[in-house]
Amino acid sequence: MNLLTSPLLTDLYQLTMLHAYYAHQMGETAVFELFVRKLSPQRNFMMAAGLEQALEFLERLHFAPEDLEWVEKCGKFPRGFAAHLARLRFTGDVHALPEGTIFFPDEPILRVTAPLPEAQLVESRLINLAHFETLVASKAARSVLAAPGKLLVDFGLRRAHGAEAGLLAARASYIAGYAGTATVTAAQRMDIPVFGTMAHSFIEAHDDEAAAFQRFAEACPQNVVLLIDTYDTELAARKVVELAPRLASRGIRIRGVRLDSGDLAVLSRNVRLILDEGGLAEATIFASGNLDEYRIRDLVAARAPIDGFGIGTSLVTSSDAPYLDAVYKLQEYAGKPRRKRSSGKATWPGRKQVFRHYDGAGGLEHDVVSVEGDDQPGEPLLVPVMRKGRRLHAPEGLHAIRERAAGQLAKLPERLRMLESAAGPYRVEIAPALRKLAAQVDRAASEVPALCK
Amino acid sequence: MNLLTSPLLTDLYQLTMLHAYYAHQMGETAVFELFVRKLSPQRNFMMAAGLEQALEFLERLHFAPEDLEWVEKCGKFPRGFAAHLARLRFTGDVHALPEGTIFFPDEPILRVTAPLPEAQLVESRLINLAHFETLVASKAARSVLAAPGKLLVDFGLRRAHGAEAGLLAARASYIAGYAGTATVTAAQRMDIPVFGTMAHSFIEAHDDEAAAFQRFAEACPQNVVLLIDTYDTELAARKVVELAPRLASRGIRIRGVRLDSGDLAVLSRNVRLILDEGGLAEATIFASGNLDEYRIRDLVAARAPIDGFGIGTSLVTSSDAPYLDAVYKLQEYAGKPRRKRSSGKATWPGRKQVFRHYDGAGGLEHDVVSVEGDDQPGEPLLVPVMRKGRRLHAPEGLHAIRERAAGQLAKLPERLRMLESAAGPYRVEIAPALRKLAAQVDRAASEVPALCK
Repeated sequence: MNLLTSPLLTDLYQLTMLHAYYAHQMGETAVFELFVRKLSPQRNFMMAAGLEQALEFLERLHFAPEDLEWVEKCGKFPRGFAAHLARLRFTGDVHALPEGTIFFPDEPILRVTAPLPEAQLVESRLINLAHFETLVASKAARSVLAAPGKLLVDFGLRRAHGAEAGLLAARASYIAGYAGTATVTAAQRMDIPVFGTMAHSFIEAHDDEAAAFQRFAEACPQNVVLLIDTYDTELAARKVVELAPRLASRGIRIRGVRLDSGDLAVLSRNVRLILDEGGLAEATIFASGNLDEYRIRDLVAARAPIDGFGIGTSLVTSSDAPYLDAVYKLQEYAGKPRRKRSSGKATWPGRKQVFRHYDGAGGLEHDVVSVEGDDQPGEPLLVPVMRKGRRLHAPEGLHAIRERAAGQLAKLPERLRMLESAAGPYRVEIAPALRKLAAQVDRAASEVPALCK
Repeated sequence: MNLLTSPLLTDLYQLTMLHAYYAHQMGETAVFELFVRKLSPQRNFMMAAGLEQALEFLERLHFAPEDLEWVEKCGKFPRGFAAHLARLRFTGDVHALPEGTIFFPDEPILRVTAPLPEAQLVESRLINLAHFETLVASKAARSVLAAPGKLLVDFGLRRAHGAEAGLLAARASYIAGYAGTATVTAAQRMDIPVFGTMAHSFIEAHDDEAAAFQRFAEACPQNVVLLIDTYDTELAARKVVELAPRLASRGIRIRGVRLDSGDLAVLSRNVRLILDEGGLAEATIFASGNLDEYRIRDLVAARAPIDGFGIGTSLVTSSDAPYLDAVYKLQEYAGKPRRKRSSGKATWPGRKQVFRHYDGAGGLEHDVVSVEGDDQPGEPLLVPVMRKGRRLHAPEGLHAIRERAAGQLAKLPERLRMLESAAGPYRVEIAPALRKLAAQVDRAASEVPALCK
């Protein structure tokens, strides 16, 4: 029973609806789009991520014997329903923004075109995957913008929300421009560079801090980054300097130190001085401890001599805005465009495309959302990625995605690079053709007699 | 390669430290304690959860062949390290707060006593599991307190941070007093009651809303809760009333309606009136849509006639406080108490116990944290749960845990039941014996020559 691939990783209402769809032979083609309704506070853009996991999920979708057994025995469905589920595979098409693409509210990042039961069932897990990676990539991009040229590392596994969040946060932040992660499974499964040396417990398990430094250096001579804030940071920096010549005589180089508490601007300056005067000008200073993009921006602005940052909880939980208003909505069924008109939650109907416009320097200028096939200028962002349940291309490598993301960040207008909400948000126009379609859908709905059977 | 059980679901520094521990034969007994340093904003207490998953992880801990292969080939460790890991099992003892117990900052919720490498390696995943479930149980308890007698259901899977977060959030909220979840895997794997009927897409896939209601009722006659806000809520309520007699003549009873948008206080009152006047006085009204404990409290205070609430994103991300300041710290090694003294992050050393005191009415009065074995009055909260790597008892059933949690909430003083921070926080005293031990540890540390080798 693999939790991560089970089709029962869904909401019960998907199954009750599927049962009703089968009972009424409602198997015509449905079009659902996944998009974010509005920006979270203090966000100016989002970065799409999670497509690879979404496609993997769709490609492998099937009910295992233990899943079917649960459906049969749960008492909620008549006999026969499990037989439908046993045959269910994802046979539809998918269009999507390539991972690493910057996008904005109301712009679909994923479109599923498939027989209604298939397209319906996958809603919960598709949002679950795409929402989280997009959330973290969008958060990570902020520290990447705040600390140009610095080494950023994901330290978040322990306070990520479960195992998969830890793994996918490493992937999403790497896409956005982090140098790597501390999470070993991310290296093992996704070949993401992995970083890590020692914790306070290592120091504390020794009676003497200098002895702990020396032992670590002897055991891990290629990876000597010493944690110096367990007791007294500057005193510890002096111990590092004292130790260096003895290690050097044995061919061991101290690569750096890490600070994990205290006033990082002051401590990094004092430690830099101690290291420089002690002949360790090449040793780097790495900082961690309750960091986020705001604190990093302030440290960079204060010219704190810090070469890299470990960012944990704030990154992997996107702590200042731990969710996106991400939804997956039916836009068309049986050839007819559809929309909900719930108060405050109305959607734009039909199959849509996003057309991006650039300024003279190649920077993002504005986007236009219209119906697919509308003869619009601009770069269409949604591309076909799956047809009849099969991928159109091999999985994209993380390096290519990372390069795309970097290219996208380079094209961001200055006002959207700030950590606070831009006074002038990015312009996303709804094209006349889409407004016209929405009006048509509403007119058609009002023509249906209210209580026809 | 099961992500959820892999020992490589850890931070790289755990492995580099393990390598150094093995290299220097540092295998004596270590004591680590998992605790939360401070309350999150607007929290007055926490509820412990996740022990079952933590024990399962410890009991099964081993490196699979593919894990060892990664360690051997990653280029970070000398030959021989993987051989140590291949033999590694968890052979230690665990003491913990029973799940569902209310606790406060500085109180250990889990203590691991094991050979140093074992106790060290498991840090990342133990925090990852206990942190998240405790976070969600603590959040869920707030809506339970805010809505006495209401049916509360976890709707959060889609915006939970990955698959495991969805599953464990269902468990943690059920422990705290929720009636169940929409997440099917939680029913399949943990036997948690599961709820769900229809989404807007079901309505929209029909040309006519009343026809959609009827079809759903025919397909799922035992489970007729109709979603009525897709277009016009009150109009839809009238369609429900219209449909009811025809369904009744076929033995199908409409159990309720769901509202998912709009002004829920106003709409629920108007819909209640329509249902009552239409002879559906027994049909319940269930509400969902961006709800949290604050909105629920206000709806309850406004006497909105709502029988139950579906709570999603705010619950499973604990959106107003998406992490706890949870840590796992070395408190003793080789028989000597230890502590870190990092600025703002100093810890109390040694093996500790929490002694709880009650007032005359059985309510929580105050706690005392002291060294284990201190002859303190009060109820000791930490109990032994694992010895030499084996559980002392069979896994505790969720119903028993849920009853404990309800009992704990009933004992909360009135001021701690509020959703905002209490003016007088709960008193947690540090006993003289523990203060004395901390002073001894600091004295001993200062006696070690600063640069001894």
